[in-house]
Amino acid sequence: MRLFNKVAIVGVGLIGGSIGLGIKKRKLANRVIGISRHKKTITSALTRKAVDLSSVNISAVEDADLVILATPVNSIIEVGFKIVPLIKPSTLVTDTGSTKREVVKVLQNLLPNFVGAHPLAGSEKQGVINADADLFRNSLCILTPTKTTSKAALGKIKRFWTALGAKVIYLTPAMHDKYISYVSHLPHIVAFSLIRSIPHNTLFLASGGLKDTTRIAASADTLWKDILITNSENILKAMKIFADSLSRIKSAIIRRDSEALERILRQARLKRQSLNHKYRGDGSL
Amino acid sequence: MRLFNKVAIVGVGLIGGSIGLGIKKRKLANRVIGISRHKKTITSALTRKAVDLSSVNISAVEDADLVILATPVNSIIEVGFKIVPLIKPSTLVTDTGSTKREVVKVLQNLLPNFVGAHPLAGSEKQGVINADADLFRNSLCILTPTKTTSKAALGKIKRFWTALGAKVIYLTPAMHDKYISYVSHLPHIVAFSLIRSIPHNTLFLASGGLKDTTRIAASADTLWKDILITNSENILKAMKIFADSLSRIKSAIIRRDSEALERILRQARLKRQSLNHKYRGDGSL
Repeated sequence: MRLFNKVAIVGVGLIGGSIGLGIKKRKLANRVIGISRHKKTITSALTRKAVDLSSVNISAVEDADLVILATPVNSIIEVGFKIVPLIKPSTLVTDTGSTKREVVKVLQNLLPNFVGAHPLAGSEKQGVINADADLFRNSLCILTPTKTTSKAALGKIKRFWTALGAKVIYLTPAMHDKYISYVSHLPHIVAFSLIRSIPHNTLFLASGGLKDTTRIAASADTLWKDILITNSENILKAMKIFADSLSRIKSAIIRRDSEALERILRQARLKRQSLNHKYRGDGSL
Repeated sequence: MRLFNKVAIVGVGLIGGSIGLGIKKRKLANRVIGISRHKKTITSALTRKAVDLSSVNISAVEDADLVILATPVNSIIEVGFKIVPLIKPSTLVTDTGSTKREVVKVLQNLLPNFVGAHPLAGSEKQGVINADADLFRNSLCILTPTKTTSKAALGKIKRFWTALGAKVIYLTPAMHDKYISYVSHLPHIVAFSLIRSIPHNTLFLASGGLKDTTRIAASADTLWKDILITNSENILKAMKIFADSLSRIKSAIIRRDSEALERILRQARLKRQSLNHKYRGDGSL
Protein backbone atom coordinates (compact mmCIF):
# COMPACT_ATOMS: atom_id res chain seq x y z
CA MET A 1 0.00 0.00 0.00
CA ARG A 2 1.91 3.02 -1.27
CA LEU A 3 1.13 6.12 0.80
CA PHE A 4 4.03 8.35 -0.26
CA ASN A 5 6.42 8.87 -3.12
CA LYS A 6 9.47 10.05 -1.17
CA VAL A 7 9.92 9.81 2.59
CA ALA A 8 12.86 11.52 4.30
CA ILE A 9 13.89 10.31 7.73
CA VAL A 10 16.11 12.73 9.65
CA GLY A 11 17.97 10.81 12.36
CA VAL A 12 18.42 7.15 11.51
CA GLY A 13 18.81 5.54 14.94
CA LEU A 14 16.75 2.76 16.42
CA ILE A 15 13.43 4.54 15.78
CA GLY A 16 14.26 6.20 12.46
CA GLY A 17 15.89 3.01 11.19
CA SER A 18 12.91 0.88 12.24
CA ILE A 19 10.55 3.27 10.46
CA GLY A 20 12.69 2.97 7.32
CA LEU A 21 12.69 -0.83 7.46
CA GLY A 22 8.94 -0.83 8.18
CA ILE A 23 8.20 1.42 5.19
CA LYS A 24 10.31 -0.70 2.88
CA LYS A 25 8.90 -4.01 4.10
CA ARG A 26 5.35 -2.79 3.57
CA LYS A 27 6.11 -0.80 0.40
CA LEU A 28 4.59 2.36 1.87
CA ALA A 29 6.78 4.64 -0.28
CA ASN A 30 8.70 4.57 -3.56
CA ARG A 31 11.88 5.87 -1.95
CA VAL A 32 13.16 6.31 1.59
CA ILE A 33 16.05 8.65 2.19
CA GLY A 34 17.96 8.68 5.46
CA ILE A 35 19.65 11.83 6.71
CA SER A 36 22.14 12.08 9.54
CA ARG A 37 24.98 14.40 10.47
CA HIS A 38 27.04 11.32 11.22
CA LYS A 39 28.58 9.61 8.21
CA LYS A 40 28.86 6.38 10.22
CA THR A 41 25.12 6.37 10.88
CA ILE A 42 24.11 6.73 7.27
CA THR A 43 26.59 4.05 6.23
CA SER A 44 25.05 1.70 8.81
CA ALA A 45 21.55 2.63 7.65
CA LEU A 46 22.45 1.73 4.07
CA THR A 47 24.17 -1.50 5.09
CA ARG A 48 21.13 -2.40 7.15
CA LYS A 49 18.95 -1.53 4.11
CA ALA A 50 16.84 0.67 6.37
CA VAL A 51 16.88 3.37 3.66
CA ASP A 52 17.31 3.42 -0.14
CA LEU A 53 19.52 6.50 -0.23
CA SER A 54 21.25 8.54 2.39
CA SER A 55 22.87 11.90 2.92
CA VAL A 56 24.67 13.94 5.54
CA ASN A 57 23.02 17.02 4.04
CA ILE A 58 19.67 18.20 5.34
CA SER A 59 18.85 19.56 1.85
CA ALA A 60 18.11 15.94 0.90
CA VAL A 61 14.60 16.47 2.38
CA GLU A 62 13.73 18.33 -0.83
CA ASP A 63 10.78 16.89 -2.77
CA ALA A 64 9.81 14.58 0.08
CA ASP A 65 6.06 14.14 0.67
CA LEU A 66 6.76 13.14 4.24
CA VAL A 67 9.61 14.22 6.51
CA ILE A 68 10.03 12.33 9.77
CA LEU A 69 12.10 14.05 12.45
CA ALA A 70 13.55 11.15 14.44
CA THR A 71 16.51 12.88 16.06
CA PRO A 72 16.98 13.17 19.84
CA VAL A 73 14.26 15.37 21.33
CA ASN A 74 16.46 18.43 21.91
CA SER A 75 17.38 18.76 18.23
CA ILE A 76 13.94 18.22 16.69
CA ILE A 77 13.07 21.93 16.84
CA GLU A 78 16.44 22.91 15.38
CA VAL A 79 16.02 20.50 12.47
CA GLY A 80 12.47 21.80 12.01
CA PHE A 81 13.82 25.31 11.46
CA LYS A 82 16.35 24.01 8.96
CA ILE A 83 13.86 22.24 6.74
CA VAL A 84 11.41 25.17 6.46
CA PRO A 85 13.09 26.72 3.40
CA LEU A 86 13.72 23.31 1.81
CA ILE A 87 10.30 21.68 1.66
CA LYS A 88 7.05 22.38 -0.16
CA PRO A 89 4.19 23.86 1.92
CA SER A 90 2.24 20.68 1.24
CA THR A 91 4.93 18.41 2.70
CA LEU A 92 3.77 16.43 5.72
CA VAL A 93 6.12 16.65 8.69
CA THR A 94 5.99 14.50 11.79
CA ASP A 95 8.37 13.62 14.60
CA THR A 96 8.98 10.81 17.09
CA GLY A 97 10.00 12.81 20.17
CA SER A 98 9.32 11.56 23.71
CA THR A 99 8.09 14.95 24.94
CA LYS A 100 5.59 16.94 22.93
CA ARG A 101 4.63 20.32 24.40
CA GLU A 102 7.69 22.33 23.34
CA VAL A 103 8.14 20.58 20.00
CA VAL A 104 4.49 20.92 18.95
CA LYS A 105 4.22 24.55 20.11
CA VAL A 106 7.16 25.63 17.95
CA LEU A 107 6.82 23.35 14.93
CA GLN A 108 3.09 23.75 14.32
CA ASN A 109 3.63 27.47 13.72
CA LEU A 110 6.60 26.81 11.50
CA LEU A 111 5.30 23.94 9.39
CA PRO A 112 1.68 24.05 8.17
CA ASN A 113 1.37 20.27 7.87
CA PHE A 114 3.07 19.22 11.09
CA VAL A 115 1.63 16.42 13.25
CA GLY A 116 3.35 15.53 16.53
CA ALA A 117 3.82 11.82 17.18
CA HIS A 118 5.34 9.57 19.81
CA PRO A 119 5.55 5.87 19.02
CA LEU A 120 5.58 3.96 22.33
CA ALA A 121 8.15 1.49 21.18
CA GLY A 122 11.85 1.29 21.39
CA SER A 123 14.38 -0.40 23.50
CA GLU A 124 17.31 0.29 25.71
CA LYS A 125 19.27 -0.94 22.70
CA GLN A 126 20.38 1.84 20.45
CA GLY A 127 21.19 2.55 16.86
CA VAL A 128 20.08 1.43 13.43
CA ILE A 129 21.96 -1.82 14.05
CA ASN A 130 19.10 -2.84 16.38
CA ALA A 131 16.34 -1.53 14.09
CA ASP A 132 13.41 -3.81 13.34
CA ALA A 133 10.78 -3.55 10.58
CA ASP A 134 8.18 -4.78 13.08
CA LEU A 135 9.20 -2.64 16.06
CA PHE A 136 5.85 -0.82 15.99
CA ARG A 137 3.63 -3.83 15.43
CA ASN A 138 1.03 -4.06 18.21
CA SER A 139 2.49 -0.99 19.92
CA LEU A 140 0.75 2.28 20.67
CA CYS A 141 1.53 5.46 18.78
CA ILE A 142 0.33 8.71 20.33
CA LEU A 143 -0.51 11.55 17.94
CA THR A 144 -0.83 14.99 19.52
CA PRO A 145 -3.05 17.13 17.30
CA THR A 146 -4.04 20.65 18.35
CA LYS A 147 -6.76 23.05 17.17
CA THR A 148 -4.52 24.20 14.32
CA THR A 149 -3.53 20.74 13.06
CA SER A 150 -4.66 20.01 9.50
CA LYS A 151 -7.31 17.28 9.51
CA ALA A 152 -5.96 15.91 6.23
CA ALA A 153 -2.40 15.75 7.56
CA LEU A 154 -3.58 14.07 10.77
CA GLY A 155 -5.54 11.47 8.79
CA LYS A 156 -2.56 10.66 6.61
CA ILE A 157 -0.15 10.35 9.56
CA LYS A 158 -2.66 8.09 11.28
CA ARG A 159 -2.83 5.87 8.20
CA PHE A 160 0.97 5.79 8.09
CA TRP A 161 1.40 4.60 11.69
CA THR A 162 -1.47 2.16 11.35
CA ALA A 163 0.26 0.73 8.28
CA LEU A 164 3.43 0.24 10.37
CA GLY A 165 1.34 -1.89 12.73
CA ALA A 166 0.71 0.58 15.57
CA LYS A 167 -2.57 1.37 17.25
CA VAL A 168 -2.95 5.15 17.05
CA ILE A 169 -4.41 7.21 19.88
CA TYR A 170 -4.78 10.97 20.27
CA LEU A 171 -3.76 13.06 23.25
CA THR A 172 -3.17 16.80 23.55
CA PRO A 173 0.55 17.66 23.85
CA ALA A 174 0.02 18.66 27.51
CA MET A 175 -1.81 15.45 28.38
CA HIS A 176 0.84 13.45 26.55
CA ASP A 177 3.66 14.98 28.58
CA LYS A 178 1.79 14.49 31.85
CA TYR A 179 0.79 10.87 31.22
CA ILE A 180 4.18 9.89 29.85
CA SER A 181 5.95 11.39 32.86
CA TYR A 182 4.29 8.62 34.87
CA VAL A 183 4.41 5.61 32.60
CA SER A 184 7.82 6.24 31.05
CA HIS A 185 9.90 9.05 32.54
CA LEU A 186 9.39 8.11 36.20
CA PRO A 187 10.24 4.41 35.63
CA HIS A 188 13.45 5.47 33.88
CA ILE A 189 14.45 7.75 36.76
CA VAL A 190 13.70 4.96 39.23
CA ALA A 191 15.78 2.50 37.22
CA PHE A 192 18.70 4.97 36.92
CA SER A 193 18.59 5.64 40.67
CA LEU A 194 18.22 1.99 41.61
CA ILE A 195 21.17 0.65 39.67
CA ARG A 196 23.36 3.48 40.97
CA SER A 197 22.50 2.55 44.56
CA ILE A 198 23.51 -1.12 44.29
CA PRO A 199 27.04 -1.61 45.71
CA HIS A 200 29.49 -2.99 43.14
CA ASN A 201 30.48 -5.89 45.40
CA THR A 202 26.91 -7.24 45.40
CA LEU A 203 26.30 -7.11 41.64
CA PHE A 204 27.49 -10.69 41.16
CA LEU A 205 24.26 -11.72 42.91
CA ALA A 206 22.05 -9.85 40.45
CA SER A 207 19.24 -12.11 39.37
CA GLY A 208 16.12 -11.58 37.30
CA GLY A 209 14.43 -9.17 39.69
CA LEU A 210 17.19 -6.59 39.70
CA LYS A 211 17.93 -7.07 36.01
CA ASP A 212 14.35 -6.47 34.92
CA THR A 213 13.83 -3.58 37.31
CA THR A 214 16.90 -1.80 35.92
CA ARG A 215 16.83 -2.89 32.25
CA ILE A 216 15.86 0.59 31.03
CA ALA A 217 18.72 2.15 33.03
CA ALA A 218 20.88 1.12 30.07
CA SER A 219 19.02 3.63 27.88
CA ALA A 220 20.94 6.34 26.02
CA ASP A 221 22.08 8.99 28.49
CA THR A 222 22.41 11.69 25.81
CA LEU A 223 18.78 11.15 24.81
CA TRP A 224 17.39 10.88 28.31
CA LYS A 225 19.04 13.93 29.85
CA ASP A 226 17.07 16.03 27.34
CA ILE A 227 13.81 14.17 27.91
CA LEU A 228 14.11 14.77 31.66
CA ILE A 229 14.85 18.47 31.25
CA THR A 230 12.15 19.16 28.63
CA ASN A 231 9.46 17.59 30.83
CA SER A 232 10.82 18.58 34.22
CA GLU A 233 7.63 20.07 35.66
CA ASN A 234 5.56 16.91 35.19
CA ILE A 235 8.45 14.69 36.19
CA LEU A 236 9.03 16.46 39.50
CA LYS A 237 5.35 15.99 40.36
CA ALA A 238 5.54 12.29 39.52
CA MET A 239 8.71 11.94 41.59
CA LYS A 240 6.94 13.50 44.56
CA ILE A 241 4.16 10.93 44.36
CA PHE A 242 6.70 8.13 44.07
CA ALA A 243 8.62 9.44 47.09
CA ASP A 244 5.39 9.44 49.12
CA SER A 245 4.66 5.89 48.04
CA LEU A 246 8.18 4.85 49.12
CA SER A 247 7.74 6.62 52.47
CA ARG A 248 4.60 4.67 53.27
CA ILE A 249 6.45 1.38 52.86
CA LYS A 250 9.40 2.71 54.84
CA SER A 251 7.30 3.77 57.80
CA ALA A 252 5.41 0.45 57.80
CA ILE A 253 8.78 -1.36 57.93
CA ILE A 254 9.99 0.88 60.76
CA ARG A 255 6.77 0.22 62.72
CA ARG A 256 7.06 -3.51 61.83
CA ASP A 257 3.42 -3.14 60.82
CA SER A 258 2.81 -6.45 59.11
CA GLU A 259 -0.84 -5.69 58.35
CA ALA A 260 -0.14 -2.34 56.72
CA LEU A 261 2.69 -3.87 54.68
CA GLU A 262 0.52 -6.68 53.46
CA ARG A 263 -2.19 -4.20 52.45
CA ILE A 264 0.28 -1.99 50.56
CA LEU A 265 1.95 -4.94 48.85
CA ARG A 266 -1.40 -6.44 47.90
CA GLN A 267 -2.48 -3.16 46.30
CA ALA A 268 0.80 -3.14 44.36
CA ARG A 269 0.37 -6.75 43.25
CA LEU A 270 -3.21 -6.31 42.08
CA LYS A 271 -2.39 -3.12 40.21
CA ARG A 272 0.60 -4.72 38.51
CA GLN A 273 -1.44 -7.78 37.58
CA SER A 274 -4.09 -5.52 36.05
CA LEU A 275 -1.65 -4.03 33.52
CA ASN A 276 -3.11 -4.30 30.10
CA HIS A 277 -1.19 -6.90 28.13
CA LYS A 278 -2.93 -6.03 24.92
CA TYR A 279 -0.02 -4.10 23.47
CA ARG A 280 3.41 -5.52 23.15
CA GLY A 281 5.61 -4.77 26.08
CA ASP A 282 9.13 -5.29 24.87
CA GLY A 283 9.99 -1.68 24.30
CA SER A 284 11.39 0.81 26.73
CA LEU A 285 8.75 3.42 25.85
CA MET B 1 22.61 -39.87 40.64
CA ARG B 2 20.84 -40.91 43.82
CA LEU B 3 21.87 -38.75 46.78
CA PHE B 4 19.05 -39.58 49.22
CA ASN B 5 16.55 -42.27 49.98
CA LYS B 6 13.67 -40.14 51.23
CA VAL B 7 13.40 -36.37 50.84
CA ALA B 8 10.65 -34.44 52.63
CA ILE B 9 9.70 -31.01 51.31
CA VAL B 10 7.71 -28.89 53.75
CA GLY B 11 5.88 -26.19 51.81
CA VAL B 12 5.18 -27.17 48.21
CA GLY B 13 4.85 -23.81 46.47
CA LEU B 14 6.84 -22.56 43.51
CA ILE B 15 10.22 -23.28 45.15
CA GLY B 16 9.33 -26.48 47.01
CA GLY B 17 7.48 -27.81 43.98
CA SER B 18 10.37 -27.01 41.64
CA ILE B 19 12.78 -28.79 43.98
CA GLY B 20 10.48 -31.83 43.93
CA LEU B 21 10.28 -31.83 40.14
CA GLY B 22 14.05 -31.32 39.91
CA ILE B 23 14.77 -34.25 42.26
CA LYS B 24 12.44 -36.55 40.36
CA LYS B 25 13.70 -35.54 36.92
CA ARG B 26 17.31 -36.19 37.98
CA LYS B 27 16.50 -39.22 40.16
CA LEU B 28 18.26 -37.68 43.17
CA ALA B 29 16.09 -39.62 45.66
CA ASN B 30 14.02 -42.78 45.84
CA ARG B 31 11.01 -40.98 47.23
CA VAL B 32 9.92 -37.37 47.55
CA ILE B 33 7.20 -36.52 50.03
CA GLY B 34 5.46 -33.15 50.01
CA ILE B 35 4.00 -31.69 53.17
CA SER B 36 1.64 -28.73 53.41
CA ARG B 37 -1.02 -27.57 55.83
CA HIS B 38 -3.21 -26.88 52.85
CA LYS B 39 -5.00 -29.86 51.35
CA LYS B 40 -5.34 -27.99 48.05
CA THR B 41 -1.58 -27.51 47.81
CA ILE B 42 -0.73 -31.17 48.30
CA THR B 43 -3.39 -32.18 45.79
CA SER B 44 -1.86 -29.78 43.24
CA ALA B 45 1.64 -31.08 44.04
CA LEU B 46 0.51 -34.65 43.37
CA THR B 47 -1.33 -33.69 40.18
CA ARG B 48 1.74 -31.82 39.01
CA LYS B 49 3.82 -34.92 39.93
CA ALA B 50 6.16 -32.66 41.90
CA VAL B 51 6.15 -35.25 44.73
CA ASP B 52 5.54 -39.00 44.97
CA LEU B 53 3.52 -38.84 48.17
CA SER B 54 2.00 -36.05 50.18
CA SER B 55 0.60 -35.31 53.58
CA VAL B 56 -0.98 -32.52 55.60
CA ASN B 57 0.76 -33.94 58.65
CA ILE B 58 4.25 -32.78 59.61
CA SER B 59 4.98 -36.23 61.06
CA ALA B 60 5.47 -37.39 57.49
CA VAL B 61 9.07 -36.05 57.75
CA GLU B 62 9.89 -39.22 59.72
CA ASP B 63 12.66 -41.36 58.19
CA ALA B 64 13.65 -38.65 55.72
CA ASP B 65 17.39 -38.29 55.07
CA LEU B 66 16.80 -34.74 53.92
CA VAL B 67 14.13 -32.28 55.04
CA ILE B 68 13.75 -29.08 53.04
CA LEU B 69 11.91 -26.24 54.74
CA ALA B 70 10.40 -24.33 51.82
CA THR B 71 7.61 -22.48 53.61
CA PRO B 72 7.31 -18.68 53.75
CA VAL B 73 10.21 -17.22 55.73
CA ASN B 74 8.21 -16.40 58.87
CA SER B 75 7.14 -20.01 59.42
CA ILE B 76 10.49 -21.74 58.79
CA ILE B 77 11.56 -21.47 62.43
CA GLU B 78 8.18 -22.70 63.66
CA VAL B 79 8.35 -25.74 61.37
CA GLY B 80 11.95 -26.32 62.51
CA PHE B 81 10.76 -26.64 66.11
CA LYS B 82 8.02 -29.06 65.05
CA ILE B 83 10.34 -31.48 63.27
CA VAL B 84 12.92 -31.76 66.08
CA PRO B 85 11.16 -34.67 67.86
CA LEU B 86 10.28 -36.36 64.56
CA ILE B 87 13.61 -36.73 62.77
CA LYS B 88 16.80 -38.71 63.37
CA PRO B 89 19.82 -36.72 64.60
CA SER B 90 21.58 -37.62 61.35
CA THR B 91 18.85 -36.12 59.16
CA LEU B 92 20.02 -33.25 56.99
CA VAL B 93 17.83 -30.17 57.18
CA THR B 94 17.99 -27.18 54.89
CA ASP B 95 15.69 -24.29 54.01
CA THR B 96 15.04 -21.91 51.13
CA GLY B 97 14.26 -18.69 53.00
CA SER B 98 15.04 -15.27 51.57
CA THR B 99 16.51 -13.95 54.82
CA LYS B 100 19.00 -15.98 56.79
CA ARG B 101 20.22 -14.42 60.05
CA GLU B 102 17.24 -15.22 62.26
CA VAL B 103 16.55 -18.62 60.69
CA VAL B 104 20.15 -19.84 60.90
CA LYS B 105 20.65 -18.51 64.44
CA VAL B 106 17.69 -20.48 65.77
CA LEU B 107 17.78 -23.62 63.63
CA GLN B 108 21.50 -24.39 63.87
CA ASN B 109 21.13 -24.78 67.63
CA LEU B 110 18.03 -26.89 67.24
CA LEU B 111 19.07 -29.18 64.39
CA PRO B 112 22.65 -30.57 64.39
CA ASN B 113 22.73 -31.05 60.60
CA PHE B 114 21.13 -27.80 59.50
CA VAL B 115 22.51 -25.84 56.53
CA GLY B 116 20.89 -22.53 55.56
CA ALA B 117 20.26 -22.03 51.85
CA HIS B 118 18.74 -19.42 49.56
CA PRO B 119 18.31 -20.37 45.92
CA LEU B 120 18.32 -17.17 43.86
CA ALA B 121 15.59 -18.30 41.58
CA GLY B 122 11.88 -17.90 41.56
CA SER B 123 9.36 -15.76 39.89
CA GLU B 124 6.57 -13.37 40.63
CA LYS B 125 4.41 -16.34 39.64
CA GLN B 126 3.34 -18.40 42.60
CA GLY B 127 2.42 -21.91 43.50
CA VAL B 128 3.31 -25.43 42.49
CA ILE B 129 1.28 -24.88 39.33
CA ASN B 130 4.19 -22.74 38.05
CA ALA B 131 6.90 -25.10 39.32
CA ASP B 132 9.68 -26.09 36.92
CA ALA B 133 12.19 -28.94 37.19
CA ASP B 134 14.82 -26.63 35.69
CA LEU B 135 14.07 -23.53 37.75
CA PHE B 136 17.50 -23.67 39.39
CA ARG B 137 19.51 -24.48 36.30
CA ASN B 138 22.25 -21.84 35.82
CA SER B 139 21.04 -19.94 38.87
CA LEU B 140 22.98 -19.13 42.01
CA CYS B 141 22.28 -20.83 45.32
CA ILE B 142 23.71 -19.19 48.43
CA LEU B 143 24.59 -21.50 51.33
CA THR B 144 25.16 -19.79 54.67
CA PRO B 145 27.40 -22.02 56.81
CA THR B 146 28.64 -20.85 60.22
CA LYS B 147 31.42 -22.04 62.52
CA THR B 148 29.11 -24.72 63.93
CA THR B 149 27.89 -26.09 60.59
CA SER B 150 28.79 -29.73 59.95
CA LYS B 151 31.29 -29.96 57.08
CA ALA B 152 29.73 -33.24 55.94
CA ALA B 153 26.23 -31.75 55.92
CA LEU B 154 27.46 -28.70 54.03
CA GLY B 155 29.17 -30.87 51.42
CA LYS B 156 26.08 -32.94 50.84
CA ILE B 157 23.79 -29.90 50.54
CA LYS B 158 26.26 -28.41 48.08
CA ARG B 159 26.17 -31.58 45.99
CA PHE B 160 22.36 -31.51 46.11
CA TRP B 161 22.04 -27.94 44.79
CA THR B 162 24.75 -28.53 42.22
CA ALA B 163 22.81 -31.57 41.02
CA LEU B 164 19.73 -29.36 40.62
CA GLY B 165 21.80 -27.20 38.26
CA ALA B 166 22.69 -24.30 40.55
CA LYS B 167 26.08 -22.74 41.10
CA VAL B 168 26.65 -22.79 44.85
CA ILE B 169 28.34 -19.94 46.70
CA TYR B 170 28.93 -19.40 50.42
CA LEU B 171 28.14 -16.29 52.43
CA THR B 172 27.76 -15.79 56.16
CA PRO B 173 24.13 -15.27 57.22
CA ALA B 174 24.87 -11.61 58.01
CA MET B 175 26.56 -10.95 54.66
CA HIS B 176 23.73 -12.75 52.90
CA ASP B 177 21.09 -10.54 54.47
CA LYS B 178 23.08 -7.39 53.74
CA TYR B 179 23.86 -8.22 50.10
CA ILE B 180 20.37 -9.48 49.36
CA SER B 181 18.82 -6.33 50.80
CA TYR B 182 20.42 -4.51 47.86
CA VAL B 183 20.04 -6.93 44.97
CA SER B 184 16.60 -8.28 45.84
CA HIS B 185 14.74 -6.55 48.66
CA LEU B 186 15.37 -2.97 47.52
CA PRO B 187 14.31 -3.67 43.90
CA HIS B 188 11.09 -5.22 45.20
CA ILE B 189 10.33 -2.19 47.38
CA VAL B 190 11.06 0.11 44.45
CA ALA B 191 8.75 -1.91 42.19
CA PHE B 192 5.95 -1.94 44.81
CA SER B 193 6.29 1.83 45.29
CA LEU B 194 6.52 2.57 41.58
CA ILE B 195 3.39 0.73 40.48
CA ARG B 196 1.44 2.28 43.35
CA SER B 197 2.42 5.77 42.20
CA ILE B 198 1.21 5.37 38.59
CA PRO B 199 -2.27 6.94 38.19
CA HIS B 200 -4.90 4.44 37.05
CA ASN B 201 -5.93 6.61 34.08
CA THR B 202 -2.44 6.37 32.57
CA LEU B 203 -2.01 2.60 32.86
CA PHE B 204 -3.39 2.02 29.36
CA LEU B 205 -0.13 3.56 28.10
CA ALA B 206 2.03 1.05 29.98
CA SER B 207 4.70 -0.26 27.66
CA GLY B 208 7.72 -2.47 28.16
CA GLY B 209 9.65 -0.05 30.36
CA LEU B 210 7.01 0.22 33.06
CA LYS B 211 6.07 -3.44 32.79
CA ASP B 212 9.62 -4.67 33.29
CA THR B 213 10.39 -2.19 36.03
CA THR B 214 7.35 -3.32 38.01
CA ARG B 215 7.18 -7.03 37.11
CA ILE B 216 8.27 -8.16 40.58
CA ALA B 217 5.61 -5.94 42.18
CA ALA B 218 3.26 -8.84 41.40
CA SER B 219 5.14 -10.99 43.93
CA ALA B 220 3.27 -12.64 46.81
CA ASP B 221 2.39 -9.99 49.41
CA THR B 222 2.08 -12.54 52.23
CA LEU B 223 5.62 -13.71 51.58
CA TRP B 224 7.16 -10.30 51.07
CA LYS B 225 5.75 -8.56 54.12
CA ASP B 226 7.70 -11.07 56.25
CA ILE B 227 10.88 -10.73 54.21
CA LEU B 228 10.80 -6.96 54.63
CA ILE B 229 10.23 -7.17 58.37
CA THR B 230 12.83 -9.87 59.06
CA ASN B 231 15.53 -7.89 57.23
CA SER B 232 14.38 -4.39 58.15
CA GLU B 233 17.71 -3.04 59.39
CA ASN B 234 19.59 -3.76 56.17
CA ILE B 235 16.64 -2.73 54.05
CA LEU B 236 16.30 0.68 55.70
CA LYS B 237 19.99 1.34 55.00
CA ALA B 238 19.58 0.33 51.36
CA MET B 239 16.48 2.54 51.06
CA LYS B 240 18.47 5.49 52.39
CA ILE B 241 21.12 5.04 49.70
CA PHE B 242 18.42 4.74 47.04
CA ALA B 243 16.71 7.90 48.29
CA ASP B 244 20.04 9.77 48.05
CA SER B 245 20.53 8.50 44.51
CA LEU B 246 17.03 9.69 43.60
CA SER B 247 17.71 13.09 45.18
CA ARG B 248 20.78 13.65 43.05
CA ILE B 249 18.75 13.17 39.87
CA LYS B 250 15.98 15.36 41.24
CA SER B 251 18.28 18.24 42.05
CA ALA B 252 19.99 18.00 38.65
CA ILE B 253 16.56 18.21 36.99
CA ILE B 254 15.59 21.21 39.15
CA ARG B 255 18.87 22.97 38.26
CA ARG B 256 18.35 21.92 34.60
CA ASP B 257 21.94 20.75 34.82
CA SER B 258 22.32 18.87 31.58
CA GLU B 259 25.96 17.95 32.21
CA ALA B 260 25.35 16.51 35.67
CA LEU B 261 22.35 14.57 34.38
CA GLU B 262 24.32 13.10 31.51
CA ARG B 263 27.09 12.07 33.92
CA ILE B 264 24.64 10.42 36.33
CA LEU B 265 22.76 8.67 33.53
CA ARG B 266 25.98 7.47 31.94
CA GLN B 267 27.12 5.97 35.24
CA ALA B 268 23.76 4.21 35.50
CA ARG B 269 23.95 2.91 31.94
CA LEU B 270 27.51 1.58 32.25
CA LYS B 271 26.73 -0.10 35.58
CA ARG B 272 23.59 -1.71 34.20
CA GLN B 273 25.43 -2.87 31.10
CA SER B 274 28.12 -4.42 33.30
CA LEU B 275 25.65 -6.76 35.01
CA ASN B 276 26.93 -10.26 34.78
CA HIS B 277 24.77 -12.23 32.39
CA LYS B 278 26.41 -15.48 33.30
CA TYR B 279 23.54 -16.68 35.46
CA ARG B 280 20.04 -16.90 34.22
CA GLY B 281 18.03 -13.86 35.00
CA ASP B 282 14.43 -14.87 34.66
CA GLY B 283 13.70 -15.24 38.33
CA SER B 284 12.59 -12.65 40.80
CA LEU B 285 15.33 -13.58 43.25
